[in-house]
Amino acid sequence: MLPLVQKAESFNLNKELPEIAIIAPGLLGASIGAASRKLNLSVRINVWARREETRAACDKLPWCDQVHSNIGDAVRNADMIWVCAPVASIPRLIQQFAQDLKPGAIVTDVGSTKAKLVKQCELAIGDHGIFVGSHPMAGSEKSGLEHAEVDLYCGKPCFVTPGKASTVDAVSVVEEYWKSLGMRTICLPANEHDRIVAYISHLPHLVASTLAALLFDRADESWKDYVGTGILDTTRVASGSVQMWKDIVDDNRDEILPVLTDMIASLEHLKAHVEGGHPDALEEVLNKGKLYRDGICPHR
Amino acid sequence: MLPLVQKAESFNLNKELPEIAIIAPGLLGASIGAASRKLNLSVRINVWARREETRAACDKLPWCDQVHSNIGDAVRNADMIWVCAPVASIPRLIQQFAQDLKPGAIVTDVGSTKAKLVKQCELAIGDHGIFVGSHPMAGSEKSGLEHAEVDLYCGKPCFVTPGKASTVDAVSVVEEYWKSLGMRTICLPANEHDRIVAYISHLPHLVASTLAALLFDRADESWKDYVGTGILDTTRVASGSVQMWKDIVDDNRDEILPVLTDMIASLEHLKAHVEGGHPDALEEVLNKGKLYRDGICPHR
Repeated sequence: MLPLVQKAESFNLNKELPEIAIIAPGLLGASIGAASRKLNLSVRINVWARREETRAACDKLPWCDQVHSNIGDAVRNADMIWVCAPVASIPRLIQQFAQDLKPGAIVTDVGSTKAKLVKQCELAIGDHGIFVGSHPMAGSEKSGLEHAEVDLYCGKPCFVTPGKASTVDAVSVVEEYWKSLGMRTICLPANEHDRIVAYISHLPHLVASTLAALLFDRADESWKDYVGTGILDTTRVASGSVQMWKDIVDDNRDEILPVLTDMIASLEHLKAHVEGGHPDALEEVLNKGKLYRDGICPHR
Repeated sequence: MLPLVQKAESFNLNKELPEIAIIAPGLLGASIGAASRKLNLSVRINVWARREETRAACDKLPWCDQVHSNIGDAVRNADMIWVCAPVASIPRLIQQFAQDLKPGAIVTDVGSTKAKLVKQCELAIGDHGIFVGSHPMAGSEKSGLEHAEVDLYCGKPCFVTPGKASTVDAVSVVEEYWKSLGMRTICLPANEHDRIVAYISHLPHLVASTLAALLFDRADESWKDYVGTGILDTTRVASGSVQMWKDIVDDNRDEILPVLTDMIASLEHLKAHVEGGHPDALEEVLNKGKLYRDGICPHR
């Protein structure tokens, strides 16, 4: 069972539209803003960004009602706050604005790791508001405001990970908002989330980066002209933000290490099959891989 | 230097359109046929398929002029012959029709490995025609006639690997035909081709299959609902034909083994960086991976 407790009364999404604040909008935050406006999910959208250029860019975006240079001003009247900064900065930002939150305000995030982060965020928010973790499985190897997409979240999964102090109502509000953005939500304890994404997200990313880095070291310049669709797809995520992935690995190290060990052992087995000329064992690996891939996306 | 020699006179693509034969059409062969008709590259397109159902399906395709049940009849009047069967079957098929080839006929293939294959094909064709190896880097995780695409080859690279008995003219004809289909051709010795594709095609495929097979073993049924775009792309090629990839691995084992060793060592290093908490070393891997991926497809 999830550790949900009844606490302060928060916003009721069924009765009225919330005022929201988007903290540190990049691809993910700006896509929340754009979709919220298009789908009429919010009465007012506030934005805070650290850099002046980002604030100037936000000021020109039609979905953005007010851009703030003071983070406290951005959250002051908001019922829901999205902190869209890199994982490593989220708790510090929450600490900065916590005392300015209005009673019952719900704070969530879009970070890719959850167990340590939810604990840190609950510590940072204290009694000033309610933190509920979120991890929308959407995004792109591109980052930045300019790549925001109004339908970025449509049809994709979103993990919602309550903390110890999350109320049932707050978790429900966060889930409902993501659903309104088109997501399928999955409510899970944060540590279970971290174990799952180590396999289905962090491992694929690290494998793709390692493969691309190996090719960086081994490939002649001319090989660039020879790439087919296979390697382009297999390594696509390696184009993602280096800083973001450093943070993710740092944060989820304990779950990632056994998964990397598992992957290395699997490759060693495969190599032994190839080396020893065991076509049946090789076929079993290829068959399992095909079954898995066909199973996760039968129509793709 | 490539071992090109002047030999029998073959077809001159600049003077007239060739009659062609497509042996064992699947996705690749049918896409050659469809594009050849659309682009008006051939006066007549013959097809041979082993299975009666495939022949019946070909008979209904608008680009196909005549379907043959006898492989000798299919090639008898053809100036160029494409053998589109799996790598393991290509030499045997060539042996079956070699004596029916007309003088100067050019035979090529679409196999993903080349060094052993080109030798076997030259042995199979003997003095009856001229074999030139081809490996168009196009395709899909889908296979079969029904997935043929008229623009499958557009803008993609194609290796052309001459054999010892290939004439300059025959190599040129094969290259020109692929270029007419929209491909960028690269003429290379077969063994050099095999070393390159071990890194840029076979390794990504085996990594994707191993990753997908590991997830097959570890993932709960519910995890299927959580997959994001990252894992879908990283494992896409694992949906490919198991038989085809068994053949490829079997054929290119000597090049693939050191490449697998290289990949395993790279993952071991990455794991050591994660385990030891060396963010700079991890960052270097992520940076190299990003540089490589951004470099092979800057606009994607």
